[in-house]
Amino acid sequence: MSDIPYFVLVRPQMGENIGSAARAMWNFDLDRMRIVAPRDGWPNPAAVALASGAGRLLDDAQLSPDLPDALKDCTYVYATTARARDLSKPVFSPEEAMRDAAARIAEGQKVAVMFGPERAGLENEDIARANAIISVPVNPKFASLNLAQCVLLVGYEWMRASGAVVHRTDALAGTDWAQGVEVEHLAAHYEEQLDAAGFFFPEHKSASMRTNLRNMWSRMPLTRADVQMLHGVMRQMVRWAQKRD
Amino acid sequence: MSDIPYFVLVRPQMGENIGSAARAMWNFDLDRMRIVAPRDGWPNPAAVALASGAGRLLDDAQLSPDLPDALKDCTYVYATTARARDLSKPVFSPEEAMRDAAARIAEGQKVAVMFGPERAGLENEDIARANAIISVPVNPKFASLNLAQCVLLVGYEWMRASGAVVHRTDALAGTDWAQGVEVEHLAAHYEEQLDAAGFFFPEHKSASMRTNLRNMWSRMPLTRADVQMLHGVMRQMVRWAQKRD
Repeated sequence: MSDIPYFVLVRPQMGENIGSAARAMWNFDLDRMRIVAPRDGWPNPAAVALASGAGRLLDDAQLSPDLPDALKDCTYVYATTARARDLSKPVFSPEEAMRDAAARIAEGQKVAVMFGPERAGLENEDIARANAIISVPVNPKFASLNLAQCVLLVGYEWMRASGAVVHRTDALAGTDWAQGVEVEHLAAHYEEQLDAAGFFFPEHKSASMRTNLRNMWSRMPLTRADVQMLHGVMRQMVRWAQKRD
Repeated sequence: MSDIPYFVLVRPQMGENIGSAARAMWNFDLDRMRIVAPRDGWPNPAAVALASGAGRLLDDAQLSPDLPDALKDCTYVYATTARARDLSKPVFSPEEAMRDAAARIAEGQKVAVMFGPERAGLENEDIARANAIISVPVNPKFASLNLAQCVLLVGYEWMRASGAVVHRTDALAGTDWAQGVEVEHLAAHYEEQLDAAGFFFPEHKSASMRTNLRNMWSRMPLTRADVQMLHGVMRQMVRWAQKRD
């Protein structure tokens, strides 16, 4: 259980930017960093050099080979993006997102914020694993926040929001939300069986159909019980199909 | 008359930081920079190199030999500082300050925000020329914002305060949510086929299983596209089962 969000750097490129991101986080009392497949390997001396004073965040950072691994214990995930693409997910300003995150954490959820690689940002299949989008409001003529600046603004809003957390005592408080790894398994189960059933057809639409399905699962507020039931639904349909062999 | 605040860099040292500050400003549609006695002279090639895309701010920047010259036409001045010293002046958070600034500008005032040199920050005699202080709330154990980051946070709050921020949750306003009758049909479709597949078993649990499934559909934020996809999923599983007959 964590009382602050995890900041997940997805495929970061320059070590310097990882170090600067660590400093930006620690300015706002955030020290839970996760790093997915850093381009130049890990540990990274350039990251350490730039992190001066916040080096502990790098020592404690959790390294993951891929995004599902980094998110496996998370129950709610935000993706930061420059362009809010139409993915039918809630799009929050940094302020709204961190207020929402603070409320969720107060309910016992485990929350993560994803930041994309320097040049290209998060890819659609990364965003498909998020529950919501954070779009930083910038000058439409000049949107050029770098990784550490994006981390800085979200961290700043976290500090603002966490000071004002009201502990919600509503009905959701005891909900047993599904973790990332459970939603991941559910998505994989459906994808595998639907593939066997010939669902992803025609071929040229297959990739976007898979992404749509992923997006749907990550948008849904799934509990552990929901996930079990949905597994049961698919298992039963497969059993039915096979009984007819 | 200006409808945005001037950002005044006081005795900046590294050209790189001046360039980064220009980029940070232009992200938030701010393009009035004033520079007081830059250490390495002016123009500065390192500043130009780092400002890429925001070079116009440097071309248009007003160079002053000293602070009084840079502030001579301003009616209200904020000083940014890490430590809010006791100077018997109002101390604002960045948010409060930029709301105050927006109100003053709307009244026709000419407003400036001062940023100190990288290492030492503003001196007491600089702050003596300010009407109010801006103190950025940071981790007391680690306050290490650099010049461009400080400019970024104040610029971000300016954009928020000036009303340029569109609350992006409105993006969901256009979402084509499924209507009750559509969710009802979806629930009925699943219930019917799962019944045929023998899912509601054993008999004495059948009613509560049906209720759980209904509850799940109604808790999910389903779009019309989701509903179509979920119908498709079930249709395909049934087709698969029947093909094997």
